[in-house]
Amino acid sequence: MNDVPGFSDVEKAHLRISPYVHRTPVLTSKSVNALLGADLYFKCENFQKVGAFKFRGATNAVMSLSNDEAKCGVATHSSGNHAAALALAAHNRGIKAYVVMPKNAPEIKKKAVQGYGAEITFCEPTLEAREETLRLLVEKTGAKEVHPYDNFQVIAGQGTAAKEMIEDVGTFDQVLCPVGGGGLLAGTSLSVKALLPTASVIACEPAGADDACRSFKAGRIIPSHKPNTIADGLLTSLGRRNFEIIQSKVDDVLTVSDESIVAAMRMIWERMKIIIEPSSAVPLAAILEQKLDVACKKTGVILSGGNVDLNTISTYFK
Amino acid sequence: MNDVPGFSDVEKAHLRISPYVHRTPVLTSKSVNALLGADLYFKCENFQKVGAFKFRGATNAVMSLSNDEAKCGVATHSSGNHAAALALAAHNRGIKAYVVMPKNAPEIKKKAVQGYGAEITFCEPTLEAREETLRLLVEKTGAKEVHPYDNFQVIAGQGTAAKEMIEDVGTFDQVLCPVGGGGLLAGTSLSVKALLPTASVIACEPAGADDACRSFKAGRIIPSHKPNTIADGLLTSLGRRNFEIIQSKVDDVLTVSDESIVAAMRMIWERMKIIIEPSSAVPLAAILEQKLDVACKKTGVILSGGNVDLNTISTYFK
Repeated sequence: MNDVPGFSDVEKAHLRISPYVHRTPVLTSKSVNALLGADLYFKCENFQKVGAFKFRGATNAVMSLSNDEAKCGVATHSSGNHAAALALAAHNRGIKAYVVMPKNAPEIKKKAVQGYGAEITFCEPTLEAREETLRLLVEKTGAKEVHPYDNFQVIAGQGTAAKEMIEDVGTFDQVLCPVGGGGLLAGTSLSVKALLPTASVIACEPAGADDACRSFKAGRIIPSHKPNTIADGLLTSLGRRNFEIIQSKVDDVLTVSDESIVAAMRMIWERMKIIIEPSSAVPLAAILEQKLDVACKKTGVILSGGNVDLNTISTYFK
Repeated sequence: MNDVPGFSDVEKAHLRISPYVHRTPVLTSKSVNALLGADLYFKCENFQKVGAFKFRGATNAVMSLSNDEAKCGVATHSSGNHAAALALAAHNRGIKAYVVMPKNAPEIKKKAVQGYGAEITFCEPTLEAREETLRLLVEKTGAKEVHPYDNFQVIAGQGTAAKEMIEDVGTFDQVLCPVGGGGLLAGTSLSVKALLPTASVIACEPAGADDACRSFKAGRIIPSHKPNTIADGLLTSLGRRNFEIIQSKVDDVLTVSDESIVAAMRMIWERMKIIIEPSSAVPLAAILEQKLDVACKKTGVILSGGNVDLNTISTYFK
């Protein structure tokens, strides 16, 4: 097996995960299109189980393990959607999930992960503590580590969202996708370039966490340094496998301000009556900032998830 | 023509309005069902054009006018969803819409109504001023008045939402519906009792605007006195035609606190990732308050709309 997945791996992933994941709808909005002079199609992963596309990759990773690999369970460190996604995927397979979380993680996220039956180990809130705690946990339990994005089967799983969107809608001129660690972006670019070779794949990133943009331009991974953005799902730096795919298949990486992200999120809440998280709004923010041409182009947008803390987010609507 | 519609009028309305209205989806949520021990089906009129079921009734009223009746346009007084609904319905027919609005109506609502091409006449924010201004306007323009709920064709149009839900899902043990003026409730009860004679229709109402509950128990219309609730779509008192239907076809009217309405709205936003307005959350609030039995019952819920002012509503999420 190659170290980096191709589109055939996305196809295999799709067959593997279809019994477990929602085939989410693609929504359009006349009023958003009229406001922006655009022709936009939104793939709604906010309606995915666990509230985010992450469940696709986690399910593919868990379901593609051999019985021997799976027997001691799976493990990861995460304070976000991947932890809940891996917990539910493991539950569906009937194996254990071990999750390392920073002890200051929000109560609501701890409860979600526990609710799916995962075993949580708390650690100090630093990347070093998380990695070291996970290493010890894997050593002790024999669980298989599933990285949130720099993982062959995770990338292949995330590519199924764009594949479904293209199957349901048909051709596109361009597909827009947020980028954090690069799992969704790498998977999306595999599907788009295989099914629609002439379509562009445009990555969209918060200016306050612009490592993908800088890495893309430099031709080498430049990790984030103290990233800061409302799009809390996009704080991570690019993974190696992700970058390899992105370099060869992504056409451009655009950055946007947090102000535009809030405005885009608000537009989708108000006009489309759906809840998306800030990370999901980054591509629409790039359109609001007129960073790309949408006139006379059929544009697909992956809405990555809908997990927001209403207590926090409501402070932005004033 | 009878003064009060029957189910055959709902069927005629459905044929008449289908080219103009969305057939909105019926959504379910495993996590909401698990939390409540229920089997709930949500008819999502928050995804309807104009963001509310009101567009069904307004469209039916406008499209059922003869050419002669329609030639001078239509008129109403409203500060809410009915004004925008009537404006768009008139636009679709190519006739004028005159809307009387209180001069303190929110800017966003004025813009919505103007955006659909209606002509707004502002008046003092009292019911007397609104009715008198409308009377003069109708006298001057010859426009046909379309009452927001106490109107034969409006009631018939609102009944199409429950009809679609039953067509899409099948049988129900009970259908829950919010009640304000009674247009949606009367229409819903016509469809439910015709298609599912053994199913119950339960109306749900804010305790701070409980005229429907008091009227239902007294057997005569008792208007609201200084109603006060977060569910701003339900401040109106029952109409005569509405009450006549409700008396014969509705099984019970339950009241709920504003606290429960906020909790129910929040549950739907967080768990289902859709935006609903407070009025839509009233039936789920009745379930949260354990005012009715949902165990082992298939329960339909009409989500009436999704028009919220995020600046205002966000103050409740803290």
